[in-house]
Amino acid sequence: MNPRLFTFVGGKEGSWSIVDVKAVVGDPLPVTERLEIINGPVPDMPDGAKWLLRGVTSNERYATRAEKDLLVAKQTGLGRSEATCAALIPIRKNAKWWSLTQDERRGIFEDQSQHVKIGLRYLPAVARRLHHCRDLSECEPFDFVTLFDYSPADSAAFEEMVSELRASEEWTFVDREVDIRMVRDRA
Amino acid sequence: MNPRLFTFVGGKEGSWSIVDVKAVVGDPLPVTERLEIINGPVPDMPDGAKWLLRGVTSNERYATRAEKDLLVAKQTGLGRSEATCAALIPIRKNAKWWSLTQDERRGIFEDQSQHVKIGLRYLPAVARRLHHCRDLSECEPFDFVTLFDYSPADSAAFEEMVSELRASEEWTFVDREVDIRMVRDRA
Repeated sequence: MNPRLFTFVGGKEGSWSIVDVKAVVGDPLPVTERLEIINGPVPDMPDGAKWLLRGVTSNERYATRAEKDLLVAKQTGLGRSEATCAALIPIRKNAKWWSLTQDERRGIFEDQSQHVKIGLRYLPAVARRLHHCRDLSECEPFDFVTLFDYSPADSAAFEEMVSELRASEEWTFVDREVDIRMVRDRA
Repeated sequence: MNPRLFTFVGGKEGSWSIVDVKAVVGDPLPVTERLEIINGPVPDMPDGAKWLLRGVTSNERYATRAEKDLLVAKQTGLGRSEATCAALIPIRKNAKWWSLTQDERRGIFEDQSQHVKIGLRYLPAVARRLHHCRDLSECEPFDFVTLFDYSPADSAAFEEMVSELRASEEWTFVDREVDIRMVRDRA
């Protein structure tokens, strides 16, 4: 299997306790107790699980070299000991978005919506990993799944960041979004 | 399954007779008699088949609106009755390519290599469909599989087009390429 494939299982297992599930736009996902994150495939829905999402990490689609260098200089990886809060946010974009050309999508993503600029302001407090689902072999319910983690002290900053992104022009193309919040014990 | 998924099976079945298989760069693929193209998944290697490649059609990664409009105005779909010649060309790009940022890849793709400009000169003679494999759930041996068809009268033009692309800066990042040529009876 693709070594960049991750599977997210909403069920009774996993180190993250789910504390809130909110349908931001479109259909919700069933509420479950825990989230398990597996770096690999999960062929069948495990016992007690209510949903399963997949995605692969991939090359950046929009960032320029200058933006990437700024991101790499400031960002940290997931899994810091103090990052006991997390959010899993699957989104789907509408057909209009996917019919746009690369220059049009880039224009909305950054020139109009400042997606990178907004994200940069919250680094290194918020760590993130983006997974792409749209071009998997399976028919997936979302186009992207992003996993974020942060410390309880940075919770307010995280809320501010997601609010800013949701108010952007880019988000007018989002036709399904679920926001799943989780906590775990300090590692 | 993803409705944009195509499976290409090299074996004893299918409407295309394979007439030539050439490893352009890197490892070859086993020679088979025929190619079968299925719009959907093929879970196991069929009897008598020697290889199986998968890919999904997707949104364009580099074309601008101006380029897309020119392409759409000139291009035709696969499957014209007179298009009795075809080529299936799977390629893989190296790690250096995938570590480049979007602006760097676009710069090589068009500003330096004129990928769209070269392709446009051979429309509508050559029809093509690009399939992406890199972000599938499976671990695929190639990043892209492109299927082309054209009439026997346009064979020389097709050779010229692939030669021009292979001489481009973009192709210095290709570390595996196989060129499979096929014919079929007039529909």
